[in-house]
Amino acid sequence: MRVYDSVLPSGNAYKVHLLLSHLGQQYETVDLDILSDPPQTREPQFLAINPNGRIPTLVLDDGEVLAESNAILYYLADGSDYLPEDRLARAQALRWMFFEQYSHEPYVAVLKFWTYWGGLSTRTAEQVQTWKTRGQAALDVMEQHLTAHEFFAGGQYSIADIALFAYTHSAAPLGFELGAATVAWLGRVRAQPGHVPIKADTTGAASS
Amino acid sequence: MRVYDSVLPSGNAYKVHLLLSHLGQQYETVDLDILSDPPQTREPQFLAINPNGRIPTLVLDDGEVLAESNAILYYLADGSDYLPEDRLARAQALRWMFFEQYSHEPYVAVLKFWTYWGGLSTRTAEQVQTWKTRGQAALDVMEQHLTAHEFFAGGQYSIADIALFAYTHSAAPLGFELGAATVAWLGRVRAQPGHVPIKADTTGAASS
Repeated sequence: MRVYDSVLPSGNAYKVHLLLSHLGQQYETVDLDILSDPPQTREPQFLAINPNGRIPTLVLDDGEVLAESNAILYYLADGSDYLPEDRLARAQALRWMFFEQYSHEPYVAVLKFWTYWGGLSTRTAEQVQTWKTRGQAALDVMEQHLTAHEFFAGGQYSIADIALFAYTHSAAPLGFELGAATVAWLGRVRAQPGHVPIKADTTGAASS
Repeated sequence: MRVYDSVLPSGNAYKVHLLLSHLGQQYETVDLDILSDPPQTREPQFLAINPNGRIPTLVLDDGEVLAESNAILYYLADGSDYLPEDRLARAQALRWMFFEQYSHEPYVAVLKFWTYWGGLSTRTAEQVQTWKTRGQAALDVMEQHLTAHEFFAGGQYSIADIALFAYTHSAAPLGFELGAATVAWLGRVRAQPGHVPIKADTTGAASS
């Protein structure tokens, strides 16, 4: 298997590395430069692999291509302990993964990108405040769930936790407030067998 | 089962109605006013059901709650012909559903909302153009796929097609350009047994 990643640390790509570490699977990684002009993810040779021009992208040994970080998690976890077996629990895992991509990542991850890799100074104060408010709202929904539950779906650590850990673990330095239940959950995620941290930032920007 | 929907026609809620029509399942609907102040989706009695305050939300007969339109589709389709059985095809269906929520809906659906139900006049021309460019980019990725494939995943009509039909079918009046392969696919979706159109707009705004 080959995972297309970016040179700078991407939380979305980190999800895939983290699950593959839990699963103990071998694979190769290709790091693309998304800060070049044009980004390597928008060059013809990569668009031929993923027409949506985004990482992570997974290429299987038979050449089949799978995109979208959370769909890759689902595929890799299928049949393992990281995807609940129960029908409703599996759907609840997906519920939190769609929540992550719609209500959480577009605010927390984008604010992280602006902060460390450029763009914050060209946004208006009002726009930055909107992003902070919406990101905080998502983190507050997580906190409410975690006050009553150990994990996000099926009472077990799953790909829903991996998807939400990817950007939540680095939200505090951006100015977001994490509640006590969320901080305790971050610790439970880090304690899972095979846990690995996100890769270091080698771009010279602030640590992520 | 109970589906929480909105008074105005929501493409995300339409996905659930369309699949339930295909499946021939009985259910009740509760329409909330999302244009009131505060929106009924942000009132305490609804937040107690879905803390993220969004429709559609599904409440099962045993009281279990499922949110996020595409997770609801997955749950309802599980075990039916509308979710491919093959492991990779199932993940490809989810790939397109995550694409829909991340790269398509935030631009096409939001521009639709601004256009028919308010907000367009308070956006800058630059912001509207950005939304049009990003929405068109998503539609172009769909067109490229549909040039070589009849449906989005597993060679069959599935919840991936339902998710992408929800807002693509009403994109042209907003100024988006649909390619020939996409127009032909819209026809194939409309020809499926049990197909129903999105509900009429009774808010007095333009037809959706």
